[in-house]
Amino acid sequence: MDNKNLRIKGARLKSTLEDMAKIGATPGGGVQRLALSDEDKEARDLFVSWLKEIDCEVTVDEMGNIFGKRPGKNNDLEPVMSGSHIDSQPKGGRFDGILGVMGPLEVLRTLHENNVKTERPIIIVDWTNEEGSRFAPAMIASGVWAGALERDWAYERTDINGKKQGEELERIGYKGPVPAKQWPVHAYYEYHIEQGPMLEKEGKEIGAPKGILCLHWYDIYLEGEANQVGPTPMEGRHDALCSAAEMILKVNEVPEKMKGNMVATVGEIQNYPNSRNIIPDGVHFTVDIRSWDDDQALRAWDSLKADFQEIADRRGTPIRMEETWRVEHAPFNEKLVKRVLESADELGYSSLHMVSGAGHDASYMNQICPTAMIFVPSIGGRSHVEVENTTWEDCEKGTNVLLHCILKSANER
Amino acid sequence: MDNKNLRIKGARLKSTLEDMAKIGATPGGGVQRLALSDEDKEARDLFVSWLKEIDCEVTVDEMGNIFGKRPGKNNDLEPVMSGSHIDSQPKGGRFDGILGVMGPLEVLRTLHENNVKTERPIIIVDWTNEEGSRFAPAMIASGVWAGALERDWAYERTDINGKKQGEELERIGYKGPVPAKQWPVHAYYEYHIEQGPMLEKEGKEIGAPKGILCLHWYDIYLEGEANQVGPTPMEGRHDALCSAAEMILKVNEVPEKMKGNMVATVGEIQNYPNSRNIIPDGVHFTVDIRSWDDDQALRAWDSLKADFQEIADRRGTPIRMEETWRVEHAPFNEKLVKRVLESADELGYSSLHMVSGAGHDASYMNQICPTAMIFVPSIGGRSHVEVENTTWEDCEKGTNVLLHCILKSANER
Repeated sequence: MDNKNLRIKGARLKSTLEDMAKIGATPGGGVQRLALSDEDKEARDLFVSWLKEIDCEVTVDEMGNIFGKRPGKNNDLEPVMSGSHIDSQPKGGRFDGILGVMGPLEVLRTLHENNVKTERPIIIVDWTNEEGSRFAPAMIASGVWAGALERDWAYERTDINGKKQGEELERIGYKGPVPAKQWPVHAYYEYHIEQGPMLEKEGKEIGAPKGILCLHWYDIYLEGEANQVGPTPMEGRHDALCSAAEMILKVNEVPEKMKGNMVATVGEIQNYPNSRNIIPDGVHFTVDIRSWDDDQALRAWDSLKADFQEIADRRGTPIRMEETWRVEHAPFNEKLVKRVLESADELGYSSLHMVSGAGHDASYMNQICPTAMIFVPSIGGRSHVEVENTTWEDCEKGTNVLLHCILKSANER
Repeated sequence: MDNKNLRIKGARLKSTLEDMAKIGATPGGGVQRLALSDEDKEARDLFVSWLKEIDCEVTVDEMGNIFGKRPGKNNDLEPVMSGSHIDSQPKGGRFDGILGVMGPLEVLRTLHENNVKTERPIIIVDWTNEEGSRFAPAMIASGVWAGALERDWAYERTDINGKKQGEELERIGYKGPVPAKQWPVHAYYEYHIEQGPMLEKEGKEIGAPKGILCLHWYDIYLEGEANQVGPTPMEGRHDALCSAAEMILKVNEVPEKMKGNMVATVGEIQNYPNSRNIIPDGVHFTVDIRSWDDDQALRAWDSLKADFQEIADRRGTPIRMEETWRVEHAPFNEKLVKRVLESADELGYSSLHMVSGAGHDASYMNQICPTAMIFVPSIGGRSHVEVENTTWEDCEKGTNVLLHCILKSANER
């Protein structure tokens, strides 16, 4: 059969995802499979057994990353890689991460049963602890593998019970012997649910992000003057929470003010002493700004900084502003992004050239090799929640796009 | 000597207050003497020993309220009472409460050393747990004594370590044998720091509150839609924290809108899941409204309710509003309030006819007998903090006013 007519098996993919969704299933219909938990181990074991069924060579590195290699005609050529992560958020969904591991598995099963030989080897990968919700930060093991983070530092990360990531890797038997160290890669594809509403809104089946938005994190600290609320007139108050409220609204309005395709959010706030009859004398809140345009994000921050200072001065609540994290926008490989769009087109699927607002393991892979992602629609744009959902049809379509992207890259000499 | 020329001894009052400030002294210059703590017991013991030195008859009731009675010429006449509380806020100040117990003690010491006999008996009282910061609610023991609260319910109130108020009364040896039950009272004066900035601002020495403001407490619950911030465009978000921010500013603006002498405050807020990269899907915050005019407070709430509903509808964040507590404004006895103003005048002190924004034990006493309060200036309007301060001169002046108010009431046949 001509490779062009090759299709994955939607029913098998569905059954595979359903088997995985049983591991760590929550009463609310989601999944809780925290990194290096017993559930993570169970899912890893199942994944490894499936890799072996189709004669993949399995290696586990010292960060617990699992690689399943399907040899090519010429194993001296740099491999094509595809993967994502098996771990989930607490009370997370049944698609985030796992679809990007089971998708390429279904691709390899399809190649296996059709006896398709590719020029280059193909490697599936499960990256350890992408979510970062048990051991912060996120994407830590792909970061170590890509050389951006230190292995020993990663081992020392602890969860809320004081357990170290390195010890937990050992406990579940996934601290492998192979160094977590990058090798040359011909192309990396990461298949993922969109986690946003754009595909659904635009009525498109496949998303091809041109890259990942920049990310700026700030921490704001306000000082007020505590007093009993009853005897303290409105005039002359220094209420830190009122200042914060004005600032939160400025953050909410800044994307429209900058007239750009950006998002800005206050997700976290602490108020002190947080007592209903005492005027707040301290507030901490966070600012998260994301944009495709790094300069625009900086201009938005400049605008907010000026607004914040004006509000703090006017209300007499001294302000301290800290920059916590800044990551520049990451454009993916244009050729591979184009290949995703073309493959969708050839398969008769509609597609959208878009951006990724969230970070992925693809962020670190993008630093070391040509990288692209394939998105499928998230129903209602929901993710990191138990109701996270994607139709089985869309899962099948995305996996077919992945199949043909992998085939094209793996047959390049 | 003519009673009109009688004056308390400022130096003795200062030394008494300084001795009390050593018990539970904090490094920041304040006092931490939580209700029924070891520090509370130590201060009570010292107070009782001072009462006995001037031949007062001491009784302790089953709520731990301490009464020191100085007999009059005719002990069948209803007594004049004055008191406040020895307990403090955590990291509280050296004047809140204790001034209103040591002040009348200084008055009795002055009568004692001058062999002044009054027609009526005079009773000083230390009310247990006025602050309510260890065992909620506040003013609990004066409430039981006045018949507004139940003794057994009060005994069951627990602190954050699960200790019951009744058990702690027993532990420190202040669960007395006498029922906590009101008797007829001719007049009750409570002497207190202002806890607000009005006296300082107006340059007045003595405050005579015409009563206590009404108090309305509300709890607001908002529901949003959680989503990863990166992939979720601004349009179509349902951010519960943005709704709350708009509402907090409406609360802050409502006193000016109502053009009235009122205060409105949001002191407490909880945000969920409170993660910097997730759109908030739940917020709880409190509203505290106080005014001399009950109807005005209700109109302010009606106005806020309409604003809150409009904001919730516009931002797609369903709202639930609960009324938690409502206390009507409490006007003090006009004759006694006038007596405070006149006594200040006779002593050559400037005075201000004002209101009390905070609740006091006088709130419950006001329900059962003619009641008034005497305020002295709080430096910077600060209270419930370690820097709470009042000059020794002002403490002396307020105590002289108290002396003459007590004398006048206690000599009424």
